[in-house]
Amino acid sequence: MSQQSAFTYIRSGVTPFFRLPSGEAPYDAYDAVVLGVPYDGGTTMRPGARFAPYEVRRASARIQCFHPQHRLDVFRALRVVDGGNVPAPPFSGAAVRELVEGMLLAVVESDATPFVVGGDHSITLPILRAIARKHGPVAVIHVDAHLDTSTGELWGDEFHHGTPIRHALLEGLIERGQLHQVGIRASFGHPEESALSLAYDARIYDMDAIDDRGVVAVADQIRSDVGDRAVYLTFDVDGVDPSFAPGTGTPESGGMSAREALRFVRALAGVRLVGMDVVEVLPALDHADLTVDLAARLLFEGLALRAVRASRTSPA
Amino acid sequence: MSQQSAFTYIRSGVTPFFRLPSGEAPYDAYDAVVLGVPYDGGTTMRPGARFAPYEVRRASARIQCFHPQHRLDVFRALRVVDGGNVPAPPFSGAAVRELVEGMLLAVVESDATPFVVGGDHSITLPILRAIARKHGPVAVIHVDAHLDTSTGELWGDEFHHGTPIRHALLEGLIERGQLHQVGIRASFGHPEESALSLAYDARIYDMDAIDDRGVVAVADQIRSDVGDRAVYLTFDVDGVDPSFAPGTGTPESGGMSAREALRFVRALAGVRLVGMDVVEVLPALDHADLTVDLAARLLFEGLALRAVRASRTSPA
Amino acid sequence: MSQQSAFTYIRSGVTPFFRLPSGEAPYDAYDAVVLGVPYDGGTTMRPGARFAPYEVRRASARIQCFHPQHRLDVFRALRVVDGGNVPAPPFSGAAVRELVEGMLLAVVESDATPFVVGGDHSITLPILRAIARKHGPVAVIHVDAHLDTSTGELWGDEFHHGTPIRHALLEGLIERGQLHQVGIRASFGHPEESALSLAYDARIYDMDAIDDRGVVAVADQIRSDVGDRAVYLTFDVDGVDPSFAPGTGTPESGGMSAREALRFVRALAGVRLVGMDVVEVLPALDHADLTVDLAARLLFEGLALRAVRASRTSPA
Amino acid sequence: MSQQSAFTYIRSGVTPFFRLPSGEAPYDAYDAVVLGVPYDGGTTMRPGARFAPYEVRRASARIQCFHPQHRLDVFRALRVVDGGNVPAPPFSGAAVRELVEGMLLAVVESDATPFVVGGDHSITLPILRAIARKHGPVAVIHVDAHLDTSTGELWGDEFHHGTPIRHALLEGLIERGQLHQVGIRASFGHPEESALSLAYDARIYDMDAIDDRGVVAVADQIRSDVGDRAVYLTFDVDGVDPSFAPGTGTPESGGMSAREALRFVRALAGVRLVGMDVVEVLPALDHADLTVDLAARLLFEGLALRAVRASRTSPA
Amino acid sequence: MSQQSAFTYIRSGVTPFFRLPSGEAPYDAYDAVVLGVPYDGGTTMRPGARFAPYEVRRASARIQCFHPQHRLDVFRALRVVDGGNVPAPPFSGAAVRELVEGMLLAVVESDATPFVVGGDHSITLPILRAIARKHGPVAVIHVDAHLDTSTGELWGDEFHHGTPIRHALLEGLIERGQLHQVGIRASFGHPEESALSLAYDARIYDMDAIDDRGVVAVADQIRSDVGDRAVYLTFDVDGVDPSFAPGTGTPESGGMSAREALRFVRALAGVRLVGMDVVEVLPALDHADLTVDLAARLLFEGLALRAVRASRTSPA
Amino acid sequence: MSQQSAFTYIRSGVTPFFRLPSGEAPYDAYDAVVLGVPYDGGTTMRPGARFAPYEVRRASARIQCFHPQHRLDVFRALRVVDGGNVPAPPFSGAAVRELVEGMLLAVVESDATPFVVGGDHSITLPILRAIARKHGPVAVIHVDAHLDTSTGELWGDEFHHGTPIRHALLEGLIERGQLHQVGIRASFGHPEESALSLAYDARIYDMDAIDDRGVVAVADQIRSDVGDRAVYLTFDVDGVDPSFAPGTGTPESGGMSAREALRFVRALAGVRLVGMDVVEVLPALDHADLTVDLAARLLFEGLALRAVRASRTSPA
Repeated sequence: MSQQSAFTYIRSGVTPFFRLPSGEAPYDAYDAVVLGVPYDGGTTMRPGARFAPYEVRRASARIQCFHPQHRLDVFRALRVVDGGNVPAPPFSGAAVRELVEGMLLAVVESDATPFVVGGDHSITLPILRAIARKHGPVAVIHVDAHLDTSTGELWGDEFHHGTPIRHALLEGLIERGQLHQVGIRASFGHPEESALSLAYDARIYDMDAIDDRGVVAVADQIRSDVGDRAVYLTFDVDGVDPSFAPGTGTPESGGMSAREALRFVRALAGVRLVGMDVVEVLPALDHADLTVDLAARLLFEGLALRAVRASRTSPA
Repeated sequence: MSQQSAFTYIRSGVTPFFRLPSGEAPYDAYDAVVLGVPYDGGTTMRPGARFAPYEVRRASARIQCFHPQHRLDVFRALRVVDGGNVPAPPFSGAAVRELVEGMLLAVVESDATPFVVGGDHSITLPILRAIARKHGPVAVIHVDAHLDTSTGELWGDEFHHGTPIRHALLEGLIERGQLHQVGIRASFGHPEESALSLAYDARIYDMDAIDDRGVVAVADQIRSDVGDRAVYLTFDVDGVDPSFAPGTGTPESGGMSAREALRFVRALAGVRLVGMDVVEVLPALDHADLTVDLAARLLFEGLALRAVRASRTSPA
Repeated sequence: MSQQSAFTYIRSGVTPFFRLPSGEAPYDAYDAVVLGVPYDGGTTMRPGARFAPYEVRRASARIQCFHPQHRLDVFRALRVVDGGNVPAPPFSGAAVRELVEGMLLAVVESDATPFVVGGDHSITLPILRAIARKHGPVAVIHVDAHLDTSTGELWGDEFHHGTPIRHALLEGLIERGQLHQVGIRASFGHPEESALSLAYDARIYDMDAIDDRGVVAVADQIRSDVGDRAVYLTFDVDGVDPSFAPGTGTPESGGMSAREALRFVRALAGVRLVGMDVVEVLPALDHADLTVDLAARLLFEGLALRAVRASRTSPA
Repeated sequence: MSQQSAFTYIRSGVTPFFRLPSGEAPYDAYDAVVLGVPYDGGTTMRPGARFAPYEVRRASARIQCFHPQHRLDVFRALRVVDGGNVPAPPFSGAAVRELVEGMLLAVVESDATPFVVGGDHSITLPILRAIARKHGPVAVIHVDAHLDTSTGELWGDEFHHGTPIRHALLEGLIERGQLHQVGIRASFGHPEESALSLAYDARIYDMDAIDDRGVVAVADQIRSDVGDRAVYLTFDVDGVDPSFAPGTGTPESGGMSAREALRFVRALAGVRLVGMDVVEVLPALDHADLTVDLAARLLFEGLALRAVRASRTSPA
Repeated sequence: MSQQSAFTYIRSGVTPFFRLPSGEAPYDAYDAVVLGVPYDGGTTMRPGARFAPYEVRRASARIQCFHPQHRLDVFRALRVVDGGNVPAPPFSGAAVRELVEGMLLAVVESDATPFVVGGDHSITLPILRAIARKHGPVAVIHVDAHLDTSTGELWGDEFHHGTPIRHALLEGLIERGQLHQVGIRASFGHPEESALSLAYDARIYDMDAIDDRGVVAVADQIRSDVGDRAVYLTFDVDGVDPSFAPGTGTPESGGMSAREALRFVRALAGVRLVGMDVVEVLPALDHADLTVDLAARLLFEGLALRAVRASRTSPA
Repeated sequence: MSQQSAFTYIRSGVTPFFRLPSGEAPYDAYDAVVLGVPYDGGTTMRPGARFAPYEVRRASARIQCFHPQHRLDVFRALRVVDGGNVPAPPFSGAAVRELVEGMLLAVVESDATPFVVGGDHSITLPILRAIARKHGPVAVIHVDAHLDTSTGELWGDEFHHGTPIRHALLEGLIERGQLHQVGIRASFGHPEESALSLAYDARIYDMDAIDDRGVVAVADQIRSDVGDRAVYLTFDVDGVDPSFAPGTGTPESGGMSAREALRFVRALAGVRLVGMDVVEVLPALDHADLTVDLAARLLFEGLALRAVRASRTSPA
């Protein structure tokens, strides 16, 4: 009756997401796999996102199966399992990127859709690499306060959490014209900070755009622009205003409300979602579970998108 | 100079609501009575609402008498007293329901309007029983993230805080077609969760309805629908988004803002209010008094509704 | 791939204590079973102890297997499993007492030693009933700020969390002269509050006794007094000073330090422990895991007591 | 190597605003000076705003130089320094008012624009005195939940934090018809509480006005009304809803969102700003830096207003 | 049914200490009067002690009447009332000192013993002035981390919270050789910081003295030294280590434990106590009521000292 | 007037330790240099120690120059400067170790004594490397809950924060028999966890040793054992009980009190201190500055040790 090693324990992630069964690769019997990546070694400001998978699992236990707006039972429409955590020691970013890419490949090669809880935003690069190996360049909907196209100059590392979109663009993981950046509002370090996004014909919806048009119209526009492309949704919780998501490391005043964030995802219904992540959740700064509850709910909305599509395109 | 017993002390509720005088039944000399019910024995998730009456009393002391939008001095327009707490030992729900019903009957039989601070939502059933004994079936405006029409199956108790509306409908305390449910957004456990509400012709305003129409239009619609009926307003603070009301036990991301909640109540001006409660305030999870301040303010808006009606229908 | 019901989920308690495997009755293959009782329906002041099993499981994951002072690997010396939670709906104390007694009987009848994380202190009565059905009247070491021999008069319930020792004495579950109450310091409601303990020849070690004699000497005295009797240890964390255990509902300034509490348990080595509980842990009031870490560590010290005895009396 | 005295240290304020260089009077070489006034001796409710300059400096370090909406580098467009703190012992309001006025005069007489972080709102009176000595009566945009035209009757002091606007009106520091009060919503102590504002032809935009017209339209209206007058912006963070700015001493539910607040200031672009303050930030009640981050960002928006005007009216 | 004014409300202090009846001067029918002084205008660091009377009243409600060590019912042995608060506007220290002295004179002239909850330590000076007008120079037991003999030089005020002992010595309110300073440990600003105490033959018990001799021995020594003199006990909670009393404004690591503090007061039994205060409690920085619970308990120990003396010297 | 880069800003660390002047290498004019290392990339559990230098600087501002027990003005006896922070990007442990070693060499080669605030414990290895290059193998007093002699196996990194003592022993930086480990109490992962320490003749003082002998006797023993050797003191705040130092990442119940910790360092007076660090301070988990205040005070005690020695061995 010996204990598991700390490592095995962290690996197992045993309080399952949404009270679901646990499952392991190959995932051929499943439509979707929820995974945690407890890694925050890419953080430049406040660290601690490594504890998000644990806390979001706890919060997700309160979410019920039936989605009242879409009118469908998400966990009947989809076969979903908790795939555990990617074992991510905090010390080597390169090793973590390989582990994440490998684990995600196992999911997408089984034709299951990955839903990932980070971790910091640096984990999105290896996820997108795996996604692109399966689907080729995809459309990316990127909710964030920041463009995440920084370089490594200042910090001495090319792959910190402010860089994933830069690498994804440069590596051709995102189809030109199909990067949709939503919620952007941080001040820039220099005038050319948005140059890379613009060079790749990204659509930037800053908070004024959301104010002026509303999240449903923005979602409609994006839905129309992505058409039937494979879509990856990367949701940095700092896209949401810090009053709704205090548990995050580089907050920026003035973001979306929780209600707008949830409705934005819901209003994407119809897109062909091939993967999603929720990143930059920092439980130590959370209060009354605001952030982890929202993260769990965003994940549920993402799963519901996948379920809506499944129920439209196939006999349940 | 001996101490009061703990019980007598809890009963007295001596830091008065809104710096008002204390009063005891019979309440014939008063227009309204504010009461606390420090009971959370009906809670399925996080308990602690038993401390809300104490903390809301404290918060209410900062509210001044003159309402700037309605342009009237609420405590001149109405004779209001703090009626103390319903002594509610946490152990017997049945006993508490009897105590609450009895105490509320004393209020309504004096022709005073009760304003109650819970406690969990299970206390609304005995309040409505007392209200209906005086007024017959009433119109109910129910602000909440949840429908509160659950059964006792899962939890082995027919009267927990997820059930008051179910019982109120089944017992005929609410007039058919006059249940107005506002702010609903929680995921359902099964597709038929709203069946009971719909069977009784309830009007459900979920958060999308509020987004699309605005709280003033929703309030106008309800005002029009209730006409001159006796109206009871039950306000579960989880109807408000948890960022504005973190001190609550079953929060759901994506609710009303504090501003919408306050304006919603204000926009009901003109309805014939016969009672109101604010429930599910959980001080231990509050931060910087956000939730207790809001609860006190909602109560003030409710008292103002009553005062507006009084000043319209009678020589002040 | 449907979700577990909330009830099944709560039942499972799946983040295991001490990273141990989960196990179910019959427990004949095990030496010890760790159980949670997420019930706080017996609480007179601040509720919330229902969340302790979840949080203590999390905290216990950081504890390693080898005990440096006793020089033994607790989880090699003993075969221990996480037995999950007693499914404890908060509404019916009587039902909970039956469930707890039944589940505990399953443990003791398998000759395994139960280690229980409450929940409020009212759960100790049904545990002691099960213990006594197996072992007859036992010696009880009771660490607490309060005597817990109250009556139900004030609160209208005979079995709230201030009463378990009263009932255990009256029901003959504790051998006369073998109740050892440690850490007592709360003010009394009346002069005769300690009369029942004294009538049963209890030994009361208040904080002055601990100050003057030290915890090791007190433990030595108790060890000598219990001899080879079957010993049950019930540890209310409010026996510890609230600065070391802020997460509790009825704190009393001036208790033991965490270090004294841990050493007290360690110094009991040699007693024949037949069960232990740690109760009244209230995570919502905790800070930086002080209380849940201490609770996990106390449990580990209790398991070590059992392991020490096992390693002394049997070929490992 | 002896220590600086506590006084010298408080004076130095050495973690500079926005990572700017420190500077001292005369400020002729600068366009703007950021100052702290760590004084909360005018507080009637919860004190602690004395720590705001320290914490807002820390928060401001995360703000970058380039403003994405105005498309300009604020710290290239303007020469800005951190002028340190006004040394404000908490004991004598009269002495503090003299110190503040003197220090502000040094700024405005150097033709630099002052940006001040309070402190409680009582510091705005001496600032306006200095401003008016330079510019004559100015237009004042006053964001607040309260009118701040109280008298000293209740509290025995004519100059507490609820009175600065009263004195500024009576002393002729504000041009008649050019007081613009935004975000007002607190209940009144008596019907005539707004009489003074109205007697001076103030424009009051309460929260309903903001709801109904939107912050951009309100800002446009004010911009049009002030024309090319010298404008002073005094921003009490309690103008914002307490969920976005919990760190404040007299919160009122139902205010502006952080997003509205920031956009309101941004939408003032074009006005001739001659000074700004952000007051009533109370770090001890803040959570996850919500309030101090917002305060720093509001200050940045104010600096950007000044920079926009500078870049429009002069060769950069 | 109009509201009380904020001032009247603050004055009343209506959640009574220890669930006692309220009483007003003259206090001839009482043995002791408990008062609050919600004033923190003398604070040099973190303010907020103005809220201590409210919170300590709440905490004191949990304390029962019978003292288990002294074996007596404190509220039978003594006739005690809650005398309400000294109405203390935060703006004028001189006015507050007069109010406090006046209110305390009313108590001592009625031959009742005052027990006061501050407020910052500056309130002790006017209390001692009233005490000395009744009793002449008294013995003072002063528990504190600081000597409180500072001058006003640095802060521009002669009467801030670091100065009461200086003034009390210079004004002859303390008998020479009868100042007993306990718990002292803060670093000094200069070598001569203890010169004044020493010049008046004060006995200084720093933390090393307490470590080496124990609080009981120190209390015994003091008891012996004061003999039958009138004794005033001023208890600054920062005498206790901040882990036991985090809610205070100028904490110093390394103080007494809560247990030592309580036992110290208890061990003074026999002294002729003529008054006591507990000051520098800052609720906004408290956690889980550690500090306010301890303050209430210290007050109870002080009342018990008075009761013990009463029961020894008179027929109950 | 452009901003400093983020990097330059982090480097500058401009709120100086103890209100001291800032200084840069070469440090020949100084006796001691206080440095920060804002690096937590070696953390296996909760990260966040990177913010400790900022917060400890703030806390240290409250400490005055004169040490009452040693009777000397520390900042007259020693010429001390704030040397700023080691610029430590969180991503490359190897780069950080080089930077730290280089910066420390600059200090020791100037014959100044370094006092360092971490960061996590992994920074102690490069500090000891620099120390040993100057002084050869030294005596090390290591206060900690853990032995810190782990290997990199589990975590895939040889240099995480559980390993510095292992490397220091293996690299010969510590003289055999001159490692003094104080406060040890964590459970072990396997029986041989202390084998390395024992193989190098380390003296391990676990908490039972401290209980039984007292910190002064333990310090005396160590002082006697180190004689006139060069002594390095590495103080992991988790050596202190988490109730006194909640702001740390791998807390272990049952440690030293703050008072014992401070007295332990004070009781080392006379040793020849050649350097000191305080590590593992995690501000995000702190409450009411308990941990940062203690860390600042420990640093002051360390500086005082150096000052005592200086004043004994040289003409001041």
